[in-house]
Amino acid sequence: MPDKVLVYSRFPKAQMVRFGERFELMDAAGKRPNEVFSAEQLSGIRAVLTAGGTPFSAETMDLMPNLGTIVCYGTGYDGVDLAAAAKRGIAVGHSPGANAASVADIAVTLMLATTRRLLAIDSYVRDGSWAGAKPSPMMRPQAGMLGRKVGVYGMGEIGRKIAARVAAFETDVGYFSRSKHDMPYQYFPTLEALAEWCSVLMVAVRAGADTTHAVDAGILKKLGKDGFVVNIARGSVIDEPALVAALTDGTIAGAGLDVFAREPHAPDALTALPNVVLSPHLGGHTLESHVAMQDCVIANFEAYFAGKPLPYEVRGG
Amino acid sequence: MPDKVLVYSRFPKAQMVRFGERFELMDAAGKRPNEVFSAEQLSGIRAVLTAGGTPFSAETMDLMPNLGTIVCYGTGYDGVDLAAAAKRGIAVGHSPGANAASVADIAVTLMLATTRRLLAIDSYVRDGSWAGAKPSPMMRPQAGMLGRKVGVYGMGEIGRKIAARVAAFETDVGYFSRSKHDMPYQYFPTLEALAEWCSVLMVAVRAGADTTHAVDAGILKKLGKDGFVVNIARGSVIDEPALVAALTDGTIAGAGLDVFAREPHAPDALTALPNVVLSPHLGGHTLESHVAMQDCVIANFEAYFAGKPLPYEVRGG
Repeated sequence: MPDKVLVYSRFPKAQMVRFGERFELMDAAGKRPNEVFSAEQLSGIRAVLTAGGTPFSAETMDLMPNLGTIVCYGTGYDGVDLAAAAKRGIAVGHSPGANAASVADIAVTLMLATTRRLLAIDSYVRDGSWAGAKPSPMMRPQAGMLGRKVGVYGMGEIGRKIAARVAAFETDVGYFSRSKHDMPYQYFPTLEALAEWCSVLMVAVRAGADTTHAVDAGILKKLGKDGFVVNIARGSVIDEPALVAALTDGTIAGAGLDVFAREPHAPDALTALPNVVLSPHLGGHTLESHVAMQDCVIANFEAYFAGKPLPYEVRGG
Repeated sequence: MPDKVLVYSRFPKAQMVRFGERFELMDAAGKRPNEVFSAEQLSGIRAVLTAGGTPFSAETMDLMPNLGTIVCYGTGYDGVDLAAAAKRGIAVGHSPGANAASVADIAVTLMLATTRRLLAIDSYVRDGSWAGAKPSPMMRPQAGMLGRKVGVYGMGEIGRKIAARVAAFETDVGYFSRSKHDMPYQYFPTLEALAEWCSVLMVAVRAGADTTHAVDAGILKKLGKDGFVVNIARGSVIDEPALVAALTDGTIAGAGLDVFAREPHAPDALTALPNVVLSPHLGGHTLESHVAMQDCVIANFEAYFAGKPLPYEVRGG
């Protein structure tokens, strides 16, 4: 009989196919597990699959007294109460770096699309304004990438890949992270100093209590009226109302966002703005990154059920 | 008295400011010069400023019997009848490479935006479909850049910069150009072979009689149903009706276009398509590239009026 895995978050069916071939999936589909399964069924659960951003509390863990592992699909694990898991001897796994290239790609896509105002210029062609030689501020030349100062906040796997891509555009790359790395980019000791220096801030830091609202009104003001912010990390890292205000009153020039404070909701004040490019948390969502993430998930579950340590365990959990 | 320069194409005023400080500008603003100026005025013209894509025929040259130089604003000079200019001893100048970084940037912007379907996913967030969990093929994972085969057609200054940027996305870069270069990318001896191999074709070749409609129905078919084409060169390089047909019937997956066959017109059949990203020939249109192009224009005119060879002369003209 195949080992049982409770699927805690709501996932597209296509992403579950390979797991279904190996394990018996019990799909809670985003509901509280005790609303879907009996206490007896839940006591038989030793392994859970979740999305890293979905809240997974101590109370939820206690619904499954025999739970031994929580495996996150993707690199993030910010929804999981790591202290509670550690206290209960639950190993937390994830897919480190499996989607880093895809996420870095969407970061650069958002950077280029916002700084070159891609949505507006596409509309200018589509609605006939170009053919009609309609005067438009959209046709005024903008600062491009050459020599532009781009700041990367966070130098994990994704931050590194963002930096490497951005540098290929003949830009000047700087970064802030907890520690200085051996890399050919200028290090800034604080986020404030990085924001003061750069004109595009790429947010690639891991979400957590220490980074919640790290990008606030003060940081946005330092970025300045020609500045852009791109966030592919988590919505929690940016003070979203402060960002909306800064975009509305011209404190900064624009933003590219793959993540939001209350997904899947993006505030109306944000979706109404012309100077943003929005993506529904699709950063890591490519065919090749899903294969890589699924490889990590399967390796974690197979190791667990074989009584071995998780190959992709969250460190410090 | 400042030297006179006839402005042949229609340019935005902001682009003429630096020239107006140095030369007496006679603005034909896109009209036939003999409709705007008298034969006597035209006989006093020794220098013309034009946009490289604007047709500039032998007949037009003959309207200005003392014409000694035609300076193109930008890198292209495909509108100028080079043979006719050579026959009349008219030196043709341009701005080689001045906008190469900006054009390469828009090429990559279009590549990323089309392959990641940026317009559609932005709409999916803005119109509330994401918040409503509305099922959409847009949410299915797509192939990303990692390991993708990207073909560059043309290895001039812009092609090289495109290749360098694209390679930073962990892709596999190949190219076709008249000759093999010493570079770390796979060389293909024909455009057919490149199109057969790659899934994104970046068109960066110089326009001319030999490249007109080089990308035709046959090349698009070789690119295939998961293939994309990006054109930042000239509209003439692609058979536009064949491209529209290929995009409409699924022969290829999508296209990113900064240039069109009959600018500033983009065919309705093209602007109605969801699988294209369109830009109104803004590739080279950044603040820094305009400064660099203007530097070249000024250097060309100043050399000419001083009786010296143009520092940025079109070779083989």
